[in-house]
Amino acid sequence: MSLRQSMRCCRPAAQALKARRVPPSARAYSTSGAGGGPSSSASSNRALYSSLAVGGFVAGFVVSMGSGFFNRPSAAARCDGVPNVDFIETNGRTWEPVHALEKDDPKNPMRIRMAAWVSNLQEHICKSLEELETAAPPDGEHAPATFLRDHWIRPSGGEGSSCVLAGGRVFEKAGVNVSIVEGKLPKGAQLQMKADHDSIEVSDEPLPYFATGLSIVIHPRSPHAPTVHLNYRYFELCDKKGNPIAWWFGGGTDLTPNYLYPEDAVLFHDTLKTACDQHDEAYYPAYKEWCDKYFAIPHRGETRGIGGIFFDDLTTSSAIHAARAPSRDQIFDFVKSASSAFLPAYIPIVAKRMRQPYTEEERRWQLVRRGRYVEFNLLYDRGTKFGLNIPGARVESILMSLPEVARWEYMTPLGREGSGTREEELQNVLKNPREWASDITGDKKK
Amino acid sequence: MSLRQSMRCCRPAAQALKARRVPPSARAYSTSGAGGGPSSSASSNRALYSSLAVGGFVAGFVVSMGSGFFNRPSAAARCDGVPNVDFIETNGRTWEPVHALEKDDPKNPMRIRMAAWVSNLQEHICKSLEELETAAPPDGEHAPATFLRDHWIRPSGGEGSSCVLAGGRVFEKAGVNVSIVEGKLPKGAQLQMKADHDSIEVSDEPLPYFATGLSIVIHPRSPHAPTVHLNYRYFELCDKKGNPIAWWFGGGTDLTPNYLYPEDAVLFHDTLKTACDQHDEAYYPAYKEWCDKYFAIPHRGETRGIGGIFFDDLTTSSAIHAARAPSRDQIFDFVKSASSAFLPAYIPIVAKRMRQPYTEEERRWQLVRRGRYVEFNLLYDRGTKFGLNIPGARVESILMSLPEVARWEYMTPLGREGSGTREEELQNVLKNPREWASDITGDKKK
Repeated sequence: MSLRQSMRCCRPAAQALKARRVPPSARAYSTSGAGGGPSSSASSNRALYSSLAVGGFVAGFVVSMGSGFFNRPSAAARCDGVPNVDFIETNGRTWEPVHALEKDDPKNPMRIRMAAWVSNLQEHICKSLEELETAAPPDGEHAPATFLRDHWIRPSGGEGSSCVLAGGRVFEKAGVNVSIVEGKLPKGAQLQMKADHDSIEVSDEPLPYFATGLSIVIHPRSPHAPTVHLNYRYFELCDKKGNPIAWWFGGGTDLTPNYLYPEDAVLFHDTLKTACDQHDEAYYPAYKEWCDKYFAIPHRGETRGIGGIFFDDLTTSSAIHAARAPSRDQIFDFVKSASSAFLPAYIPIVAKRMRQPYTEEERRWQLVRRGRYVEFNLLYDRGTKFGLNIPGARVESILMSLPEVARWEYMTPLGREGSGTREEELQNVLKNPREWASDITGDKKK
Repeated sequence: MSLRQSMRCCRPAAQALKARRVPPSARAYSTSGAGGGPSSSASSNRALYSSLAVGGFVAGFVVSMGSGFFNRPSAAARCDGVPNVDFIETNGRTWEPVHALEKDDPKNPMRIRMAAWVSNLQEHICKSLEELETAAPPDGEHAPATFLRDHWIRPSGGEGSSCVLAGGRVFEKAGVNVSIVEGKLPKGAQLQMKADHDSIEVSDEPLPYFATGLSIVIHPRSPHAPTVHLNYRYFELCDKKGNPIAWWFGGGTDLTPNYLYPEDAVLFHDTLKTACDQHDEAYYPAYKEWCDKYFAIPHRGETRGIGGIFFDDLTTSSAIHAARAPSRDQIFDFVKSASSAFLPAYIPIVAKRMRQPYTEEERRWQLVRRGRYVEFNLLYDRGTKFGLNIPGARVESILMSLPEVARWEYMTPLGREGSGTREEELQNVLKNPREWASDITGDKKK
C-alpha cells in the first residue's frame, strides 16, 4: 500500500474493526495508569459500538468512562465524559489501525514509519473533532461541520493531505495537514544544519532530503475555548548516493486561550508532561521553556499563548540526552507519545468550554487575540516563512493556520493595564509566562 | 513654534482664517488648470464659510464646484461635488495654513520644511475624511466618526502624531500618521545606504540621521470603495559633527480595490501622473512600474492592488534625473505635488462608491482581500519590518495599517479561475498589472 493510500480518510468498517486487535506490546507505554482510568478491552468494545452508533465510522476508539469528570481535572491521559461522545485514550497506540502497525514494523525505514504515523494520527484527530461537532448542542446557526479532505501532489517531489473544517458549530476553522516531501538541499542550508548535526558532510552539490510531518491549528468558535497548535516532523538528509547522513525529529504543541482558565492550562501541561516524562524527564522542562521562547511576539512583549512544549533537531546525540544516547526508535516512541497526548490534552478543554455562553465583547476580544496570532504566524513563524519561500509550495496548506477572522483595533481598550478585567488577566500571563504542570507548582488538583 | 506645536490638530479659528491669505506665488504649481476647474478666491471664500458651517472647523478648503462630476472622470486635480461637502483643490499649496508657509521658507532646513509639510497635510487629510463621514447618508448603524488624535514622544529621539478613525460610516478604519525621528545609524546600515548614495563616507561609529514622513492607510466600509495607502518621507544622514552628508525622499501612493472599476483606476493613475509630469516626465512610468513590483505578494502570484506610484532614494544625482540634476527644492516640490494629489486621486472614488449597495458575499470577498493586505504588510512590507525592529518603536502606530477585520478561507471559491465573476475580474488584473493612465492607453474618457 502506498503512502498516499495510507492517508485515505474513510476506511471500510471491516478494516477498522481489525484495528481493534492491538497486540498488548503496543500498549506498553500507555499512560492510562497515571490516572487509574479504565482502559480494558470490555470498555474498548463499548466504545467501538458506541462510536459506530453515533458517528457511523470507527477509528478504534477506547472509551474513558469519565462521567462527572468536569470536577476532577486530571494529569492523566483521559478525557471527560461529554454525553453521547466516546473519547479516546490516545496517549498510547491503542487506536492505531492495523495497516499503520504494519507500516510501523521496525524493519521499515523510519521515513515510512513516521509518514504512516502522522497520516493515521491526522485521520484520527479529524474524526475526533467531527465527533465533537456532532455532539455539540445546536446553536440555531451552524450545522455540525465535517472536514474537507484535499490530497495534493507537488510535481517537484512531495505529496500531502490537507483536511480543513470551516464554519462548524464548535470549530470556526480547523486545519489538520500532513506533508511528505522530498527535495534537494543547497549548500547554504546544509551549512546551517551542520551547526546542530555534526554528521553532515557539507557538499557543494545540493543533497537529497526527506521530510514528513503533521501540522494542526484549531480555532474554536467560542472565545472561552482556546486555539491550539500542533506540529511533529521528521527530517532526513542523505549523501549524494541517497544514504542517510543525518536525521532528527522536531515539533510541539501549544495552547492559545483568550481567557485564562488555570485548570485548563494545568490539564494541558500535565498531559504533555506525563507523555514526556515516560521517555526522558529532561524533556518537559527544557521543551516547555523552548516553547515559551519560540511562540513569542517580541513587538508586543508577550507570548502567543500559555505555551506547551517545543523542540527541534532531536537526535541520538542531542545535548539534552547527555550520555543516554537513545536509539532512533526510542526517540520515535517519544514523538508518538507526545503527539498522541494532543487529543487528551485538548479535547476535554474544548468540550467543556464550548458550552459556555459568551458576550459580544468576549467575541471581540477573541478576534483581537486572533490578530496577534496572525502577527506571530506571518512575522515570526519560521515554518510559515520557510514554506512560503519554497517554489511551488502549496500556499493554501501553509496559510491554513490563519484564523477565519481576525481583528485589529488601534489602542484597544480591551485588556488594558489596570482595568482589572479578565482580558487583562490573560495579558498578564502572556507577559509573564508561568509554570503550569501540577507536580512543578505543587498544585495537585485531582 | 516647535515642530510638535505645529502638529496640533485643532488650530484656533483665527489662525485658520489667516491661512486663507495665501500669496499668489504659492499657487504657482497648482494643476487646477489641467481640468479647467474654478479655483478663484471667490470660490475659496465660499468653501471656507461652507466648511465652517458644516464641520465647525476650517483647514483652508478651496471648493472645486464639481457638481455633476460623477459622469466625467477627469485626470485633473479636482474632486466631485458630494452634496454638502466642499472638496479641496489639493494639487498645489493653496490649502496650506500660514504657519506652514512660514515653515516652508527656503531659508529653513529641509527637515523643518518637510516635517511642517507632512504635519499640515496630515491634518488636512484627516479633516477631509471627517467631512466625508458627515456627508455620508445614514446607514442606521454607524454614526459619523472623527479621528482620535494621539501625539507621542519616543524617549530615544522622536515624536509623532497618530490619527486614527475607526467604526465610521464611510471608513471602517483609517490611520494617518506622522513621525519625526532622530537616531544613530550603525555601520552595517550605512553600508547598505551607500549603495544608493555615493556621498556617504562610511564610519565605524554610528552616524546621526533624521527622518520624517507621513503614512496613511484607509480601509472604507463598502466593498466597492477601495483601500488606499500613502507614504512620503524625507531622510537625512549626517557626519559625526552633525553636518548632512546625504539626503533623499521616498514614497508613493497605491490603490487596493476589491472590485475593479476601470474608470476609478484611470482617475487614480491620471491624477498621479499629472502631478508627476509637472516635474519630470520620467517619473510616472518608472514609479508606476516600481509600485507594481514593490506591492507584490509573491506567494499569491498577485499584486496587492492596481498600483499607483512608488519611489525611494530620490536625490539630485539619482539615475532617473540623468543630466538634469534638480535641486533639493525642486525634488521637494515634486514630493509636495505627489502628496497633494492624494485627495483628488482618492476622494472622488470613495465618495462615489460609498453610496453603492452591497451584498453579504461582496463584504465577505472584501474581508478575504483584506487578508491578503495583512499578508503583504506583515510578510513583505519593509517599512513594517523596519519599524517593528526598532527598539522602543510605537507598535500601535506601525500596525495601524492593518484592517479592522480580515478573513482567511481555505481554497476560497470567491474569485476562482473560470468563475466569470467580478471577483475573478479583479484577480485577473492583480495577476497581470495593466497600464491605466489615459494618455498612455489612449483611453481619454473625459
